[in-house]
Amino acid sequence: MKGSEGQPNLDALRERAAVLVEALPYLWQFRDHVIVVKYGGAAMQDEALRREVLRDISLLKQVGMRPVVVHGGGPEISEVMRRLGKEPVFVDGLRVSDAETVAIAQMVLLGSTNPALVAEISGQGTPAIGLSGKDSGLVKAAKLSGPRDLGFVGEVAEVNVELLARLLDEGFVPVIAPIAPGPEGATYNINADHFAARIAGALKASKLVLLTDVRGVLEDKEAPETLISELSAARAGEMIAAGGIDAGMIPKVEACLDALGAGVAKCHIIDGRLPHAILMELLTDYGIGTMVVQ
Amino acid sequence: MKGSEGQPNLDALRERAAVLVEALPYLWQFRDHVIVVKYGGAAMQDEALRREVLRDISLLKQVGMRPVVVHGGGPEISEVMRRLGKEPVFVDGLRVSDAETVAIAQMVLLGSTNPALVAEISGQGTPAIGLSGKDSGLVKAAKLSGPRDLGFVGEVAEVNVELLARLLDEGFVPVIAPIAPGPEGATYNINADHFAARIAGALKASKLVLLTDVRGVLEDKEAPETLISELSAARAGEMIAAGGIDAGMIPKVEACLDALGAGVAKCHIIDGRLPHAILMELLTDYGIGTMVVQ
Amino acid sequence: MKGSEGQPNLDALRERAAVLVEALPYLWQFRDHVIVVKYGGAAMQDEALRREVLRDISLLKQVGMRPVVVHGGGPEISEVMRRLGKEPVFVDGLRVSDAETVAIAQMVLLGSTNPALVAEISGQGTPAIGLSGKDSGLVKAAKLSGPRDLGFVGEVAEVNVELLARLLDEGFVPVIAPIAPGPEGATYNINADHFAARIAGALKASKLVLLTDVRGVLEDKEAPETLISELSAARAGEMIAAGGIDAGMIPKVEACLDALGAGVAKCHIIDGRLPHAILMELLTDYGIGTMVVQ
Amino acid sequence: MKGSEGQPNLDALRERAAVLVEALPYLWQFRDHVIVVKYGGAAMQDEALRREVLRDISLLKQVGMRPVVVHGGGPEISEVMRRLGKEPVFVDGLRVSDAETVAIAQMVLLGSTNPALVAEISGQGTPAIGLSGKDSGLVKAAKLSGPRDLGFVGEVAEVNVELLARLLDEGFVPVIAPIAPGPEGATYNINADHFAARIAGALKASKLVLLTDVRGVLEDKEAPETLISELSAARAGEMIAAGGIDAGMIPKVEACLDALGAGVAKCHIIDGRLPHAILMELLTDYGIGTMVVQ
Amino acid sequence: MKGSEGQPNLDALRERAAVLVEALPYLWQFRDHVIVVKYGGAAMQDEALRREVLRDISLLKQVGMRPVVVHGGGPEISEVMRRLGKEPVFVDGLRVSDAETVAIAQMVLLGSTNPALVAEISGQGTPAIGLSGKDSGLVKAAKLSGPRDLGFVGEVAEVNVELLARLLDEGFVPVIAPIAPGPEGATYNINADHFAARIAGALKASKLVLLTDVRGVLEDKEAPETLISELSAARAGEMIAAGGIDAGMIPKVEACLDALGAGVAKCHIIDGRLPHAILMELLTDYGIGTMVVQ
Amino acid sequence: MKGSEGQPNLDALRERAAVLVEALPYLWQFRDHVIVVKYGGAAMQDEALRREVLRDISLLKQVGMRPVVVHGGGPEISEVMRRLGKEPVFVDGLRVSDAETVAIAQMVLLGSTNPALVAEISGQGTPAIGLSGKDSGLVKAAKLSGPRDLGFVGEVAEVNVELLARLLDEGFVPVIAPIAPGPEGATYNINADHFAARIAGALKASKLVLLTDVRGVLEDKEAPETLISELSAARAGEMIAAGGIDAGMIPKVEACLDALGAGVAKCHIIDGRLPHAILMELLTDYGIGTMVVQ
Repeated sequence: MKGSEGQPNLDALRERAAVLVEALPYLWQFRDHVIVVKYGGAAMQDEALRREVLRDISLLKQVGMRPVVVHGGGPEISEVMRRLGKEPVFVDGLRVSDAETVAIAQMVLLGSTNPALVAEISGQGTPAIGLSGKDSGLVKAAKLSGPRDLGFVGEVAEVNVELLARLLDEGFVPVIAPIAPGPEGATYNINADHFAARIAGALKASKLVLLTDVRGVLEDKEAPETLISELSAARAGEMIAAGGIDAGMIPKVEACLDALGAGVAKCHIIDGRLPHAILMELLTDYGIGTMVVQ
Repeated sequence: MKGSEGQPNLDALRERAAVLVEALPYLWQFRDHVIVVKYGGAAMQDEALRREVLRDISLLKQVGMRPVVVHGGGPEISEVMRRLGKEPVFVDGLRVSDAETVAIAQMVLLGSTNPALVAEISGQGTPAIGLSGKDSGLVKAAKLSGPRDLGFVGEVAEVNVELLARLLDEGFVPVIAPIAPGPEGATYNINADHFAARIAGALKASKLVLLTDVRGVLEDKEAPETLISELSAARAGEMIAAGGIDAGMIPKVEACLDALGAGVAKCHIIDGRLPHAILMELLTDYGIGTMVVQ
Repeated sequence: MKGSEGQPNLDALRERAAVLVEALPYLWQFRDHVIVVKYGGAAMQDEALRREVLRDISLLKQVGMRPVVVHGGGPEISEVMRRLGKEPVFVDGLRVSDAETVAIAQMVLLGSTNPALVAEISGQGTPAIGLSGKDSGLVKAAKLSGPRDLGFVGEVAEVNVELLARLLDEGFVPVIAPIAPGPEGATYNINADHFAARIAGALKASKLVLLTDVRGVLEDKEAPETLISELSAARAGEMIAAGGIDAGMIPKVEACLDALGAGVAKCHIIDGRLPHAILMELLTDYGIGTMVVQ
Repeated sequence: MKGSEGQPNLDALRERAAVLVEALPYLWQFRDHVIVVKYGGAAMQDEALRREVLRDISLLKQVGMRPVVVHGGGPEISEVMRRLGKEPVFVDGLRVSDAETVAIAQMVLLGSTNPALVAEISGQGTPAIGLSGKDSGLVKAAKLSGPRDLGFVGEVAEVNVELLARLLDEGFVPVIAPIAPGPEGATYNINADHFAARIAGALKASKLVLLTDVRGVLEDKEAPETLISELSAARAGEMIAAGGIDAGMIPKVEACLDALGAGVAKCHIIDGRLPHAILMELLTDYGIGTMVVQ
Repeated sequence: MKGSEGQPNLDALRERAAVLVEALPYLWQFRDHVIVVKYGGAAMQDEALRREVLRDISLLKQVGMRPVVVHGGGPEISEVMRRLGKEPVFVDGLRVSDAETVAIAQMVLLGSTNPALVAEISGQGTPAIGLSGKDSGLVKAAKLSGPRDLGFVGEVAEVNVELLARLLDEGFVPVIAPIAPGPEGATYNINADHFAARIAGALKASKLVLLTDVRGVLEDKEAPETLISELSAARAGEMIAAGGIDAGMIPKVEACLDALGAGVAKCHIIDGRLPHAILMELLTDYGIGTMVVQ
Repeated sequence: MKGSEGQPNLDALRERAAVLVEALPYLWQFRDHVIVVKYGGAAMQDEALRREVLRDISLLKQVGMRPVVVHGGGPEISEVMRRLGKEPVFVDGLRVSDAETVAIAQMVLLGSTNPALVAEISGQGTPAIGLSGKDSGLVKAAKLSGPRDLGFVGEVAEVNVELLARLLDEGFVPVIAPIAPGPEGATYNINADHFAARIAGALKASKLVLLTDVRGVLEDKEAPETLISELSAARAGEMIAAGGIDAGMIPKVEACLDALGAGVAKCHIIDGRLPHAILMELLTDYGIGTMVVQ
């Protein structure tokens, strides 16, 4: 039921209308478009932010977009490992994974993180469905090659895009954990940014949105006020080569470049700690993070 | 392209987000719903308001609703009559219409007002289509009965709702002039509020929105600050009976009662002079006029 | 109910059967084919002919073809102009049109001629729908270039064929007035033969039928008995160049050439004063006018 | 290509137009309607009539009706029987049928008459398909009960209407021989008028047309000029009871009553020797035989 | 209802399961695939074998394949000819056919053999439909060219594959007699192996199965134990050239080569006298005849 | 490729054919039918049996049925609990579940058991998808009422059958863990037999198959040779009341009664240790367990 408040405040009406008039064309533009959101960091750990983000994703779906969520697991995997008597080891930000470690990672991601997200989105009346690379062969992993053997740490070798397309056509919000079967039936753990980029690329998504704990890519990596609003792929490559991008940001920018190369229209690195960061980035002219484009 | 403005203003973000978070569920709720808008008055005469209203109707369509516009012709008919040497005569607000008068009314409504509205909405990329009761037998008129013979002034006898439904399914915004064929092939002029109510009733519309030049229904018809936000059909009947409603407002309230009786969910009498009155009424919790409900 | 008349007249039966056996294969051949009829001249002014023509168009629709009607306005525009105090001026058969003139032309075409045709066809149970270039951007006009500035006289710059196709699929008979929006939101008046040719071309119509007040193209423009039944586009071009075609007929032949060039299969210039001219031309082997072919 | 013949003969045009204007609404009315034609008699034996009838059936199909043909076999069965050394025996017009006789009847009907009809209709570009009660269990026969045992002479016990409906939907003209499997896998020969009536009834056909070698039902069975154009079922019953109908006509009238009772709209007993009898009866106001109605 | 037999016999269970586990993937593989079966020889003459074969074809249909049956007529044609006083004459295994002979062949094939097969398959709840080349122009024949004029003996000139495809889509099992219309409206008799090969080729069938009265192609044509399980088209050509294939087998091998050339995946020459030969060949790893492949 | 083995062994052919001829009609009968399999016990723990069962489920899907798998977790939950320092406690076969216990149960079921089953079925080319009650609100739990508070042990309160139906229509094999959200957002652990029965009931499944570690229901619960092949619901109720059914079997029989009451056609309690128990029960006349029917 609507409330009435005496004389209408014309300025307030005009302001509200302005936000809507700005937002509605974006809704139209993105109707039925696939938006892949890599979800993690503070926006996943903080209870209030988490509720806000999942609500925003639910709203995107309700107004006709096709959000796909890829999530990591983060601190909880390490915590369960320790409770089971294993000490986590990381190399260059990647978790060294023997068979037991990857089994624990799968157990936490699919048995704890994923169902919690799925239940929360579904609880808002938005039909979310939990997936990993194992469902119907959605993703096939290859062992990550590199200077050091990290065990069952993989990269995406193949995406069964037809499966995802059918689920999106059926109206589901896929919530995907970056676990996938690899050679010889083994299970592999995959970096979630990379996983999300490949999913976005395979779906020819309109957008890949990476939720992070920083403002975006900075002109001067020491100066937060030097946020770059729009960054071309070429320029991003030069900045990485020149050492101008923060180490922690490099895999995210690389994920964007990977996605753009596979046909994703635009990638957004945004600060998940800002209120309603996703809605702001998608539905307003107000650029809150860094948009990476071809 | 998105602009960036240094440090994000968190309060501004929260405010914008609040408007969106409020509006998006209404979008979801009204997806594919039929909204009949009776368009007239200042919102049609004033150039700036007119642009705003037609833009808002276009936005409603773009975000997935099914707006239907019914318009009157107002002052322009009288003006052309006078230029052609006929003096307009009104009885109880209804134009006394001999054959020539109704021919002029049709000429102005279908040959001037309607194509202008259609061209303006279509020019925004929204496919509008101009109609009258004559198209495919959309509406059949009966002569209006009453104490005095007003000539070719009619009321709606029948609506070919299947035709409208097909045009809505095809994605058009019907823009309808209240002209219809009646007995013996004659053309009839019909009051636009009544015409809109019958169209809304036949379509089982979710909403009938009447754009007027006043705030809405008032508790005390002399005191604009006594706007009634929500009015039940029963109460409206009592107020009319008790003389509590302004004479000019009575036909509008009666049109609402007619529509409600035919199955329309909610009717809104709003002030077309307020900025973006339609968007505000449909997409915010902010009640700007009077909502009449069963 | 059927009547019986004693002994059957075998010759009469054979004659009737012969007409049907001749006609039915044409019905089969043109099932679902688009037939664009340019309607004007005596067939529009004469009450009896008019009824006959609109009935024939209705029959074409009922037996499965897809007629599209394009009409002019003719004498009525000039009459209303004069009543409003403006003297019509013509140059080479085209009406010089200032803003007021085009507004009056639109008012008459859309507010008088078009709804009358639409109501009459619809009254026969055939769903006709009135349109102009303004509906959903059906036609975009460009200012007609030429030696003399005729004001708001346009030519067809673009046809939104998808809109018409949808209406035809939905079973409507489009009845179109040659009015369209042009540059800077101005309204343009377009020659109806040219307009019909472009509509036919955009629809890849099977036939363009031009109803005229003469027998067709003549071998000797002074001798009506020298009617040419079938005329190739090449020959038509030569005849125009050689001055062998009557001045009033030239724009009609040019409209045919324009349509043929755009993919229309056959164009027919026929005499709208002959009884059931359209049925005869489409459903019998009896050639009553001039057929122009590639 | 169309021919031109100098000055148009206006009377001839008007006459041709009149036939078409009369016929086209019937075409519209019967679009997609099922018309069951019992084909036999002179119209099957006479080469010229036969060609005409099959052409008419083909035309009905081409203009959008759904003809179904049921045929008898007549003289040819007896001829083959005699060549194989069996003398045909008839009781009340029904062929006494031992196992060998019904095998010969099937051989002639399905192996000679039916494929000839099917090939001739198909040869006109109309997809005909030959059937008997054995195809997909189209018709199940029961032994005809009666005072005398006629052997394998059956009546229709059940029609698999769904099969026929699918073939009609696929655009075929079913041509059906009145042979059907009965109890214990035996083959039964069925009277073609009765068979056609049951097929028409099962299909809820719009019309059952019986081609005969007489004018129709006569008021005075001795006087051909007393043809009854329209006969109610009730009146037909009375006439049979009163002995007012010719013995040979009785089974045909009974077939009509059977079909009417099963929901067929109208039955026509017409003279197959008249030129284009079917077209005349279906597409003109000219009643050439007897129409039996509920 | 299921029976229980005390302690389960584990070996029996394992054996049954093995058969199913072997068969089910074939079912999956051939789901919706077209299997053309040339039916003739002992499997058609012997009552018990015949019942078995038609049951197997019915089962293929029930589990989702699309069987098409082409049959010959064999001894019965000669028998009826003799009864009608004509002595059959054969040249190189082909029946010399004057007009009367082909009429008798058609009468037997379409009036006796075909309806019997159709009734028997339909009687099992599987919708079979009898066809010849005459139905809807399914097959057009050309006169068979060769050193000697055999009269109305034809070869397949054209297959209307769209007709068959529609019947298969509608769920029918077509049962086709090798009779077809040829030049000048004459009827032609066609060798059934050749006819089946062309039908299979036109349908791009997955398999052509020829039921014969021998084991298959032999390495040494005198030694039945030298059955060749799999034969390449190239090798088959060489064997024919070298005289290594039995004269009676040559047309069958040639039919296979014809079908393979037209896109059929695999052809099987199998012994119709073996129990359930078709099921065994299609649903087990057990090769019972000769498979000819590209 | 098919093997040939000299002279065909006719007895072997007949035996194989017999198995197929028996099985194929069941395939036809169960085409597109929903078969819910409760998977657990030895058939899940034993590596070889497990492979066999999952292969059989995959085959059911491939031949056109719609299997749905519901699984328990069994020993692994207790093992992980112990490794995390919690001692499992059971009351009447149900695990007493505080919040941590249910979190561990969910972690094991969804993070270990479920993805292993899904990956194994998917690895056979059959698209399996892992689910729990949390996906799109598939199942809502209520706290299990009873004499003792077991904590987060639930029962099925509601099944979102439309979700499952869509996934089945899309061709997926749902593999469901009996975990569901309950009141106040808590997670509940549900007995898998009961969960499977409710899923089967909601889907109106044709069959519910419970894989157990015993032969079925016994006439004399001490004598395995007294297996009851078919048991009516009424009789089952009496036996439970009379104490004639083994305590461990009671919940399984109750699950069957629950499913039958909700519209499942037949329930099967079979011994998962027998080879290919599911195939045998569904595709042969050989009853290997107890079938419970209404």
